[in-house]
Amino acid sequence: MATFPIRIAVDAMGGDHAPHEIVDGSVQGARAHGVSVLLVGKPDEIERELKKHDTQGLAIEVVPASEVIEMGESPATGLRKKKDASIIVTAKCVKNGQAQGMVAAGSTGAAMASALLYVGRIDGVDRPAIGVRLPSSSTPCLLIDAGANADCTPEMLSQFAVMGNIFMHNVCNVEKPRVGLLNIGEEQSKGNAFAHTAFQLLEKDERFHFIGNIEGKELFNGSADVAVTDGFTGNVALKSAEGVMKMFGGVLKTELMGSFRTKAGALLAEPALRKVSKQVDPEEFGGALLFGIKGICVISHGGSRARGIKNAIRVAKEAIVADVLGKISKQIQEGIDVNDHAQ
Amino acid sequence: MATFPIRIAVDAMGGDHAPHEIVDGSVQGARAHGVSVLLVGKPDEIERELKKHDTQGLAIEVVPASEVIEMGESPATGLRKKKDASIIVTAKCVKNGQAQGMVAAGSTGAAMASALLYVGRIDGVDRPAIGVRLPSSSTPCLLIDAGANADCTPEMLSQFAVMGNIFMHNVCNVEKPRVGLLNIGEEQSKGNAFAHTAFQLLEKDERFHFIGNIEGKELFNGSADVAVTDGFTGNVALKSAEGVMKMFGGVLKTELMGSFRTKAGALLAEPALRKVSKQVDPEEFGGALLFGIKGICVISHGGSRARGIKNAIRVAKEAIVADVLGKISKQIQEGIDVNDHAQ
Repeated sequence: MATFPIRIAVDAMGGDHAPHEIVDGSVQGARAHGVSVLLVGKPDEIERELKKHDTQGLAIEVVPASEVIEMGESPATGLRKKKDASIIVTAKCVKNGQAQGMVAAGSTGAAMASALLYVGRIDGVDRPAIGVRLPSSSTPCLLIDAGANADCTPEMLSQFAVMGNIFMHNVCNVEKPRVGLLNIGEEQSKGNAFAHTAFQLLEKDERFHFIGNIEGKELFNGSADVAVTDGFTGNVALKSAEGVMKMFGGVLKTELMGSFRTKAGALLAEPALRKVSKQVDPEEFGGALLFGIKGICVISHGGSRARGIKNAIRVAKEAIVADVLGKISKQIQEGIDVNDHAQ
Repeated sequence: MATFPIRIAVDAMGGDHAPHEIVDGSVQGARAHGVSVLLVGKPDEIERELKKHDTQGLAIEVVPASEVIEMGESPATGLRKKKDASIIVTAKCVKNGQAQGMVAAGSTGAAMASALLYVGRIDGVDRPAIGVRLPSSSTPCLLIDAGANADCTPEMLSQFAVMGNIFMHNVCNVEKPRVGLLNIGEEQSKGNAFAHTAFQLLEKDERFHFIGNIEGKELFNGSADVAVTDGFTGNVALKSAEGVMKMFGGVLKTELMGSFRTKAGALLAEPALRKVSKQVDPEEFGGALLFGIKGICVISHGGSRARGIKNAIRVAKEAIVADVLGKISKQIQEGIDVNDHAQ
């Protein structure tokens, strides 16, 4: 079996379509991105799926884990009771150096808790945060925190900005990421008491380029590269956007199927519809990242299919190659701008 | 000139398309909904627009106001300096009984402040709140507060629930509105400290039917009839949804225009596309309502066209006919369920 210097552990048992779509996506990811993949879970189930694919020349290894934390299960209870859960073993692969990064499509809560408990926080990071790249009509914006911390201090938002800034510069090649504070108006005076304090703190922070307040609608039009917010607001923004898109998509489908004429139209328009659905599909972006952990941790949507997992592996690889961890660690601890700038 | 018992004052000078679209929509609204309309603003400009329409048999009156608070202007400064601003005169029409309700498409801040200063709060209501009916794949949900109060107490959310409940029952004919708390998970334990306290308060309130937490995605799928939240979270949810819809719509349009084939498809699919765009168009819903004011106050989108204004007049009329004000006042002051229930 070939080996590649970049090794990514994938929870093969997590998500609505595990293990078949996870294994499929892992095989695709290993081939497309030239990385070693550790598939964690029940060996017989994983092997059965692997047999369906051509894995010659790929570095795919099975790491046994006998238990699974289900999507509906309480992460706290699951982690306490199932010490051999696939998500725990996946995190341990990162902890003990078998892998530099992990990909999980199961319960977000269980993935976060496993990463936090078994991989651990980067020294100096108060709280890990979830970053999600949002679809956009121009350049995608990283929303951070998208749900890890329901209650935040303004200081945490500064750290989220630091981490998001490093990711967008080093992985997404944005020369000077524009960091905005998610708020309900552009003027500094807008927003609640928390937003006022956060604004003042972000404004004087020299570790990133703060552009002031941005509104919810600006998350999707390329106005900012990083949108910082507390995990409560971020999660509501993300879920509201997902909800309305799903509603829009559903209504569109129903109406297009409503008559022979519109059905024919939909058939002709199909290449455009497919492109749009790809452009706004969260799976294209390879999932959310948990920042602030001593290992790259990509959390994919519970409904991820092979393509989502393949893209998650790409994102994990890119973050590893760009040494996002080392840079976050250095900047949080030494307080200096670590991004390389042109001139 | 005919007169009708229901009189609605419209700020003819407010919004991106004032006065022509506002006057047009007012004429349409007066005819379609059999109400008297007071058009407030510069008489010569309004008269010039009125001449373009057949107003025979309609009860349309012009109320002079010499100034206009512009969209970009600070509401506080505008209200202080321009005492004869159309939005102030519109609010005064409600205050002095010339009209029972008002419609405004200009600056939301100026409309809210005018209503609060010149019409005044219902006794017992702590803070007026903005309610917006969201597009949905099934029944629309009223999001309240959608932006009036950036900082809220849990007690305010109870009042928002009371007001939303009365509106959805009496105007939207929902027998027993399901009131949900906008949160980041369904379990009671989810969310931030504010959400926890609000949950406990809403749960024991007997003035409405509380169904627990709802997530952002459930705002658009008919899971709840009323979604209560603080004005910061509500505004972010609303704007994020608007933003992603705009992005989706834009991308769709670009892709459909990308080739001859997809253009032809779009042409055939046009009836379906038009229906969808109507179904998800905020103008269909006639704008937001400011609840808790001693008069019906409908705030339309700044970009409203005639159809939006016509629908706003319909919503104002329905709220007046249903005596939403009297019912809110009674329930807030007497603490009893005022909705009429079948059996």
